[in-house]
Amino acid sequence: MNTFGHNFRLTSFGESHSQAIGGIVDGCPPGVAVDYDLLLSEMARRHLGADATTRQEPDDVELLSGILNGVTLGTPIAFIIRNKEQRSTDYNDLADCYRPGHADFTWQQRYGLRDFRGGGRASARETAVRVAAGALAKMVLRQRLINVEASVLYNPTPAENDSSGGIIQCTVRGLPAGVGNPIFGKLNACLAAAIMSIPSATGFEMGEGFSAAHMKGSEWADQWRSDGSLGTVTNHCGGIQGGISNGMPILFRAAFHPVATLPIPTQCLTPLGTTKTITPHGRHDRNHIPRTVVVVEAMTALVIADLLGSS
Amino acid sequence: MNTFGHNFRLTSFGESHSQAIGGIVDGCPPGVAVDYDLLLSEMARRHLGADATTRQEPDDVELLSGILNGVTLGTPIAFIIRNKEQRSTDYNDLADCYRPGHADFTWQQRYGLRDFRGGGRASARETAVRVAAGALAKMVLRQRLINVEASVLYNPTPAENDSSGGIIQCTVRGLPAGVGNPIFGKLNACLAAAIMSIPSATGFEMGEGFSAAHMKGSEWADQWRSDGSLGTVTNHCGGIQGGISNGMPILFRAAFHPVATLPIPTQCLTPLGTTKTITPHGRHDRNHIPRTVVVVEAMTALVIADLLGSS
Amino acid sequence: MNTFGHNFRLTSFGESHSQAIGGIVDGCPPGVAVDYDLLLSEMARRHLGADATTRQEPDDVELLSGILNGVTLGTPIAFIIRNKEQRSTDYNDLADCYRPGHADFTWQQRYGLRDFRGGGRASARETAVRVAAGALAKMVLRQRLINVEASVLYNPTPAENDSSGGIIQCTVRGLPAGVGNPIFGKLNACLAAAIMSIPSATGFEMGEGFSAAHMKGSEWADQWRSDGSLGTVTNHCGGIQGGISNGMPILFRAAFHPVATLPIPTQCLTPLGTTKTITPHGRHDRNHIPRTVVVVEAMTALVIADLLGSS
Amino acid sequence: MNTFGHNFRLTSFGESHSQAIGGIVDGCPPGVAVDYDLLLSEMARRHLGADATTRQEPDDVELLSGILNGVTLGTPIAFIIRNKEQRSTDYNDLADCYRPGHADFTWQQRYGLRDFRGGGRASARETAVRVAAGALAKMVLRQRLINVEASVLYNPTPAENDSSGGIIQCTVRGLPAGVGNPIFGKLNACLAAAIMSIPSATGFEMGEGFSAAHMKGSEWADQWRSDGSLGTVTNHCGGIQGGISNGMPILFRAAFHPVATLPIPTQCLTPLGTTKTITPHGRHDRNHIPRTVVVVEAMTALVIADLLGSS
Repeated sequence: MNTFGHNFRLTSFGESHSQAIGGIVDGCPPGVAVDYDLLLSEMARRHLGADATTRQEPDDVELLSGILNGVTLGTPIAFIIRNKEQRSTDYNDLADCYRPGHADFTWQQRYGLRDFRGGGRASARETAVRVAAGALAKMVLRQRLINVEASVLYNPTPAENDSSGGIIQCTVRGLPAGVGNPIFGKLNACLAAAIMSIPSATGFEMGEGFSAAHMKGSEWADQWRSDGSLGTVTNHCGGIQGGISNGMPILFRAAFHPVATLPIPTQCLTPLGTTKTITPHGRHDRNHIPRTVVVVEAMTALVIADLLGSS
Repeated sequence: MNTFGHNFRLTSFGESHSQAIGGIVDGCPPGVAVDYDLLLSEMARRHLGADATTRQEPDDVELLSGILNGVTLGTPIAFIIRNKEQRSTDYNDLADCYRPGHADFTWQQRYGLRDFRGGGRASARETAVRVAAGALAKMVLRQRLINVEASVLYNPTPAENDSSGGIIQCTVRGLPAGVGNPIFGKLNACLAAAIMSIPSATGFEMGEGFSAAHMKGSEWADQWRSDGSLGTVTNHCGGIQGGISNGMPILFRAAFHPVATLPIPTQCLTPLGTTKTITPHGRHDRNHIPRTVVVVEAMTALVIADLLGSS
Repeated sequence: MNTFGHNFRLTSFGESHSQAIGGIVDGCPPGVAVDYDLLLSEMARRHLGADATTRQEPDDVELLSGILNGVTLGTPIAFIIRNKEQRSTDYNDLADCYRPGHADFTWQQRYGLRDFRGGGRASARETAVRVAAGALAKMVLRQRLINVEASVLYNPTPAENDSSGGIIQCTVRGLPAGVGNPIFGKLNACLAAAIMSIPSATGFEMGEGFSAAHMKGSEWADQWRSDGSLGTVTNHCGGIQGGISNGMPILFRAAFHPVATLPIPTQCLTPLGTTKTITPHGRHDRNHIPRTVVVVEAMTALVIADLLGSS
Repeated sequence: MNTFGHNFRLTSFGESHSQAIGGIVDGCPPGVAVDYDLLLSEMARRHLGADATTRQEPDDVELLSGILNGVTLGTPIAFIIRNKEQRSTDYNDLADCYRPGHADFTWQQRYGLRDFRGGGRASARETAVRVAAGALAKMVLRQRLINVEASVLYNPTPAENDSSGGIIQCTVRGLPAGVGNPIFGKLNACLAAAIMSIPSATGFEMGEGFSAAHMKGSEWADQWRSDGSLGTVTNHCGGIQGGISNGMPILFRAAFHPVATLPIPTQCLTPLGTTKTITPHGRHDRNHIPRTVVVVEAMTALVIADLLGSS
């Protein structure tokens, strides 16, 4: 389904070329001051480096409910972002064409039909909804002095007519010890699911991550500080033990593959099982990593706000 | 909460030293033949290489409901595994002691009290429940000719009085195209959450994983076979596009850190904020990777059985 | 939370005087033809007999997503209904005033603040969202030849400056045997929850309902037809046995209390614990029963569409 | 599914003649003292008046996890009740026979197979699990001085070889104002679903219930006390306004039909569509109302404990 979270819960809607995309945030605590500037700046961060994109949408977010006099009511906060361009003619050649490296084929198998215009619901355009909801989550976290900050760790410059991926790291500071659930609902499991749900995510690691496989147990265990200050000397585990935060910064990294759409002749599969060649036009990010940073932050903020609970 | 999945759903219970551990599998389709030999052999695989463990439990699984004449009824299947040893005296020195690299401290912060005997609910003993439920999930998958198989990819020999981690890879074969959900419930996101919920997991990657960050878009996109056979020439994406299976094998890897408990003097934190030194005894795996393989398979089978749905 | 259902799932938002009310229907099967006329006529039925209401809203429903060329995509269908009047000055006297027979006091206790304009989220205006979503559910049911029809069973004419309640009966025809879940998710339990969630509902009974308490067991049991036609001679149970439909018509009745707001001096409670007298103006239905009929149908259709499942 | 509740959550298992029935209570707060005497006495109350039952089971409840030194840990509390009699030979004549007034036919339609021994999972025996879990919920409520008490309001003496139903009323005292959720998760809707899920329930009404349909609005609204004491003069609404408790006692009634199984020749439906006559033996309650009282209390306690939340 299209819902993320339990206590602080986002339900998302919209296709790339439907009238609007948007969502409902349910479970936002009452009494949170709504920071419209933060909302605007987060949406703007998602357009960072969108140089290769011909469609330039300002992505105005219209808040429809759940707020009175600039303060949340504890009721659902609905928001919509109008899609400015809904010309479907640009995309008619995609109606019977499954592009390589895209969800065209799998979506068709899953639902039996799909909105082929610009990727439809499978378009990365849906991340705008995540960012808007993430901004609301950040407003909640800020009240508790919790800060989520991601940055680019690795991101090569794309060659001409090609695209590049990269690695993003993220840190959560100010999270108290005791947040998260044991067994299946571990904080690290929730973060992994959230980050791996971002389009083009291919890997996730907490703390030392894959390097931990090369460490000895005697190196791995983060030793308690013996000077009386709470916390550990090292932070190999990335701030989570047994699925629950330990008060140290939460640290993780995520890998993203390059976007598959390139403005070059591309061999597609057809519903008949044959192939045909098209040259994609429309939106294609040569380098989506800089703008994916705010999406990583948004999903992280949603996870933390959700686990902090609310009613 | 202690429930995993939606359609094929495991609810788990039990502490390391409570009377029993076990679970309820709800949503198993009616009419599945119960393979008791598979159940036994999976439980046995979890004891592989348990050389450093002084406690040798056969882990008999008692099935209590949901089965008539060796066939599932579609009703909840409850199972229990008795804990043979419940002597708590061995563990009294852990009552006011938070070991480094364990969940002792975080669990105490989360709940305000904990069963300190052998790790209590945070003990890796709970993975026996996952393996038993995973065996049931495998019986469901087998009916559809779906096979889950994991193996050790990297696992150094531990030094004396030390422990080692490693990397496990897993492949799902026979999964048809169209399984998984878009947006938040992507198959890769579900697998990531499942695997990262396993004790000591530190990283997860699908297909090329972290290597994908180094690829160009022109390399990344898996090209359709042009010989008329359905599928792709390469499988960089690991069998999932847009969160939905594409009919190719599902491929992922996971990293695990070494177990932190070593039979050497260890500095623990106390509730007063001071430290004290203990020498752990009882269970400690010098190398848990070989036995974690079946846990990875179990969680994977649970995810697939859940997404295949049932009623 | 503000979500109803699991497979066919409505998430609702909006206050009486927010910019809009609306919802997201998630889990509607792909390929359902959208009948806009039905949607319009259902919304119109909700305005039946709204004589005492000074605010006359046409309640245009704007569909924002999930539909392509008049057919559902299987993706979330979002819809909004703009609130035409948002003047809050009319309601300033309600800011520190809890009316008798309303949710003003309980809502304040629950959330610590509330939108006092016209009842805010507790206003019966939210039933417009149920009716719109119910129309979508009916489109799904119609494809399977399932029909939901409610009517007024008892509804006295209100005295001057007073209001009246009543009893509504509902029948579902065409539902095959085998729909519903045993134990906690019984079809009758789902219907009871759905109907009792309608504003002003005070009672619910299936089949013989409260009269069943006066029957002997020898009278109660619906005997099988012996002429070879499937079904029972009587339908005391209202078409549900053990929580699951038996193929006979589903029959239930629901009672509703009269609306409490009357245009006469009314003693309210204040946050200080004192009372003060106001004379309510604005919306107040002297007789809401005729317009509640379509709300009963909508909730029933949502329950059935949900239980029929989808993916 | 077989799970009830969200925060305080019962997952139930077991057939009438499986090895055991039982459940897992997840979300019970840590630190609750376990009152074994209450658990025993509640189980005993469920056997009240079981005179017509040939099977006399003591229903020992074995608690398997989640408790240390008589106090809850906040982890899942699993419990099992062994079925003493599992002789299936008594029931062979029910294998191809759908009794009137039972779930035999509907269950077969739903699942395609069923455990026909004594009703299988559809047997009222599953209410023992509700009562055991309800006892745990009562322990939680008692800490907050909340009391749930039900009693028989109407219950005629059954004629010979016949059975009788009745009406049970229930009161919750000590519940503070502000408990429950608006819109779909109203406290009254949750109670209705809980009570209507009890085997043989046919009706539910809050406060004035069906009588409210006959009241004028000027009579209906419960007026605030003007003497400074918080509360209302009357309690027509049964303590709930807008789905949320108002601090007055919660009042509701429920109707139950008589048990359909009588020790007389009974015409059953067969899978071939023909009828055949059997004379039921085994368990059959001539009057289940006295023992259903504790089931009503259990479900009510589960609802309240769930809504009070926990973590």
